[in-house]
Amino acid sequence: MESREISRAVIKRLPRYYRYLGDLLDEKVDRISSNELSQKMHVTASQIRQDLNNFGGFGQQGYGYNVAFLHKEIGKILGLDVVHSMIIIGAGNLGQALANYGGFDRKGFRLEGIFDVNPDLKGKPVQDLKIQMVNSLPAFLKKNPVEIAILTLPRGSAQEMADILVQNGIRAIWNFAHVDLDTPENVIVENVHLSESLMTLSYNLSSRNPD
Amino acid sequence: MESREISRAVIKRLPRYYRYLGDLLDEKVDRISSNELSQKMHVTASQIRQDLNNFGGFGQQGYGYNVAFLHKEIGKILGLDVVHSMIIIGAGNLGQALANYGGFDRKGFRLEGIFDVNPDLKGKPVQDLKIQMVNSLPAFLKKNPVEIAILTLPRGSAQEMADILVQNGIRAIWNFAHVDLDTPENVIVENVHLSESLMTLSYNLSSRNPD
Repeated sequence: MESREISRAVIKRLPRYYRYLGDLLDEKVDRISSNELSQKMHVTASQIRQDLNNFGGFGQQGYGYNVAFLHKEIGKILGLDVVHSMIIIGAGNLGQALANYGGFDRKGFRLEGIFDVNPDLKGKPVQDLKIQMVNSLPAFLKKNPVEIAILTLPRGSAQEMADILVQNGIRAIWNFAHVDLDTPENVIVENVHLSESLMTLSYNLSSRNPD
Repeated sequence: MESREISRAVIKRLPRYYRYLGDLLDEKVDRISSNELSQKMHVTASQIRQDLNNFGGFGQQGYGYNVAFLHKEIGKILGLDVVHSMIIIGAGNLGQALANYGGFDRKGFRLEGIFDVNPDLKGKPVQDLKIQMVNSLPAFLKKNPVEIAILTLPRGSAQEMADILVQNGIRAIWNFAHVDLDTPENVIVENVHLSESLMTLSYNLSSRNPD
């Protein structure tokens, strides 16, 4: 499996397959045909067969896909078979919303710490953690190696914090700040630019209803 | 302008241009060459020229782009020249984070109400609004026509709420629930599936560091 090259387009669709297969597992569904999955996901059955054939031999004629097996294999490809440690930088509403979302934990993302600059928030409990001050971050990361930092700071302080995170060994940043970060090539940055998503919605509204 | 067909690929890049041009405006930059913009955005200058030439005549040889004009024109295309009214359904941390983000207001998205089912939250102030109960939503929408609903409910109750919203005249849903909504074709849905974004990050981490 490791040696097989899967196209970026297929990779981009895998999280959605993973979500639907997880739902089917929750509903105690053992197997599903590409046609049934097609109806659920609003994707053509031939697209599904093409995508899932990339992994070889999951589907069987007249039987369909084994849901648990496929869910597990796609999970492996997505790196969900190992535990990823995370910290949140920025304990505002967005940071706390992400901390409180239980779904990440179930997928193997373990929150190890939550940090802020606001001294009023120091020690405040969030889930089973207490908010720490950002100035204790380097010492924390020395003791607790963490892979992923979730950045929910205002845009003005995001780049400076990204530099500190990278210097202290963070290998991936999930960036919610409304700014593109400058980071070394070996650091992975995944952006969630919410305002751009809202603009796309606005464009679709305007173009559907020309005045 | 209205009659010109712009490709989906270009449209998808417009919010990012809009963000960078807005930053330049804030920095009091009047004009910028495609080369300078290229360095800032990490996009090739020829890509920028190709994209922006879609709108015709914005760039001038030896002068560059007029930042204010280009910002305004792209804003029009994105539907940001008109005010969009919004409500938030779900006043948890995520709903409150979105309510408190001032950037939407500056882009012409006006928050008209915030709703929840939890009676403990009734009347609690968020920005200059007070949290209302979801059962008052139909009456509210009859009095206050709203275009966009921001859905930050848990996935289990999202579809039912989407049905209610559509029945009461909502034309666009910005969906943060971890589920794909079933809606009539004339309703626009823009999804922010955060867990899928995190899985993409996890995939990139795993594929960069094969064990």
